[in-house]
Amino acid sequence: MIPTLEWTPAGVSFLDQTQLPHEETYVLATDYKEVATVIRDMITRGAMAIGVSGAMGVAIGIQNSTATTIPELNAEVAEICDHLAATRPTAVNLFWGIDRVRALYDKLAAANTPIPEIKKAVVALSQEMYDEDIANCKQLGANGADLLPQEGTILTHCNAGALAACGYGSALGVIRAAVEQGHKLNVIADETRPYLQGARLTAWELMKDNIPTTVSCDNMAAYLMGKGRIQACIVGADRIAANGDTANKIGTYGVAILAKEFGIPFYVAAPWATIDINTAHGGLIPIEQRNPREVTHSNGIQMTPDGVGIENPAFDVTPAKYITAIITERGILRAPFTESIAAIASAT
Amino acid sequence: MIPTLEWTPAGVSFLDQTQLPHEETYVLATDYKEVATVIRDMITRGAMAIGVSGAMGVAIGIQNSTATTIPELNAEVAEICDHLAATRPTAVNLFWGIDRVRALYDKLAAANTPIPEIKKAVVALSQEMYDEDIANCKQLGANGADLLPQEGTILTHCNAGALAACGYGSALGVIRAAVEQGHKLNVIADETRPYLQGARLTAWELMKDNIPTTVSCDNMAAYLMGKGRIQACIVGADRIAANGDTANKIGTYGVAILAKEFGIPFYVAAPWATIDINTAHGGLIPIEQRNPREVTHSNGIQMTPDGVGIENPAFDVTPAKYITAIITERGILRAPFTESIAAIASAT
Repeated sequence: MIPTLEWTPAGVSFLDQTQLPHEETYVLATDYKEVATVIRDMITRGAMAIGVSGAMGVAIGIQNSTATTIPELNAEVAEICDHLAATRPTAVNLFWGIDRVRALYDKLAAANTPIPEIKKAVVALSQEMYDEDIANCKQLGANGADLLPQEGTILTHCNAGALAACGYGSALGVIRAAVEQGHKLNVIADETRPYLQGARLTAWELMKDNIPTTVSCDNMAAYLMGKGRIQACIVGADRIAANGDTANKIGTYGVAILAKEFGIPFYVAAPWATIDINTAHGGLIPIEQRNPREVTHSNGIQMTPDGVGIENPAFDVTPAKYITAIITERGILRAPFTESIAAIASAT
Repeated sequence: MIPTLEWTPAGVSFLDQTQLPHEETYVLATDYKEVATVIRDMITRGAMAIGVSGAMGVAIGIQNSTATTIPELNAEVAEICDHLAATRPTAVNLFWGIDRVRALYDKLAAANTPIPEIKKAVVALSQEMYDEDIANCKQLGANGADLLPQEGTILTHCNAGALAACGYGSALGVIRAAVEQGHKLNVIADETRPYLQGARLTAWELMKDNIPTTVSCDNMAAYLMGKGRIQACIVGADRIAANGDTANKIGTYGVAILAKEFGIPFYVAAPWATIDINTAHGGLIPIEQRNPREVTHSNGIQMTPDGVGIENPAFDVTPAKYITAIITERGILRAPFTESIAAIASAT
């Protein structure tokens, strides 16, 4: 089990993903501001992981509060939630995680529940969400496994693995489930510039599971597809709009277009919480722009000339028309996605 | 004028492109083996630059020879040419450069020309080829300038600039010519993993010419195209087959597919010497596989876990169907390329 994040009596413990694959070190966040820093600085990252981190951040903030009255605590909770929500804008799971704990808090506070009981309840919920996240990954993995070929090579972009969740992973969860069922799969991990989640994280966790993995530069996908070396693509998601448009790590959109051109299936794997039915289409998803230094520098050394312009969007939005299917723990969604998503949403 | 390479009395002087954009240092190659090392280690790179470097390598090898008879010199020339030809397999210009000097040598040797005269003649030819290369770039730049919009942003991949030639450049030559004619252009330079020719070289030389340039990771092209921010793509070539299939830096193929999907013109700019009418189609072009360390390490630090597989093809082949036009100093070629190429070839 890869210890991506964990609630401990001392605080929330995070595997420091900025140090992988070289070192397995841990960062202990003992208050909500430290949790926010962990999310903002990508010590932990991945939509599902930051969803549960957001929940645990609210829980630890409430747990640490010295407020003695509900109105006082209400004000603190508002501040805690705003602070955590301001860390990263794209993945809807972050807001979902924060809001779910806050909703429980609001209910208990409105009922004038004693503060010690509220504290216990929100901490317990954030831990339940942790367990649910793993269960969801395993279920969506099982749901999607048969979409992958019995034998072949799967291309994935970024890291939608155990490191992007509380465990098991979404895109890599589907690969893990298929391998557990006996599929003979190799993985091509796009290195995923500029942050190298594929080269550093996907390669690391798949090698731990003895799944044969090759790292490839992002720009090699057309070459590999053209040689018939990729049988399917599978990626995670940071937010899926109501029409199926999918925000995911920058570069996903290009992979999806190439897959279509070569007739290769392109799957998105994500827990239901990643689907934002309040966002009608992908054009409405805010795209985080990150520090140009991620592009200009590598291991502290500048690679570009001084003064040149830099692009660094952290995500792009793949239009639904390029997506073969969306794999969730609640089932496999296919086009027209507006209808398949609405059908599951209304069954809630 | 960017001093990519230059014949000097002491040897061939090369701007060390591995040190850009930080330092402008020079490597002096005083014999043909040093020229070969410069080409193999990518101290100079780019199809046109290594074509003329190959020619100068043969010339310096012959110049330095202590052979006193033609048969003795013949044997040395064979060894010199084989050694230089073994450095990099994909760019046809290398072989063209070597063969052109060798052909002159063979002719003079067959005529029993005195060895000192042969030496002078081959050195003079390699210098003529240098001048021709710049003239060809300027001519193809002038030919292609009007294909670029009066105003807009041009995406280029890798470096097909002054640094890839004796000066001015092919793809960047077309951009330079358009800017000189008053087009208001910005350039997006794909950083071009793993060797970062775009981030390091294209950005450096365009900024020297005050052409506004932004570096973007290779995987951001679909994002930028989808936002309408790219009006045309232009790249160089390492070898163009008789049917128009074009080998160029890894990643070119993907850019071409994306351009087609977004309805953006995709141009190849290359001197006629890059067209290899003896190669019927792109599948026959040998693709150089380079050291995995270019992918695994960055500034000496390993980014990937030990033991993971690595892909590192240096080039890919873009099928002719994705190419809007091929711009040469002898004119603009359009589909069907087999016919347009044959027409110019037969006019030789």
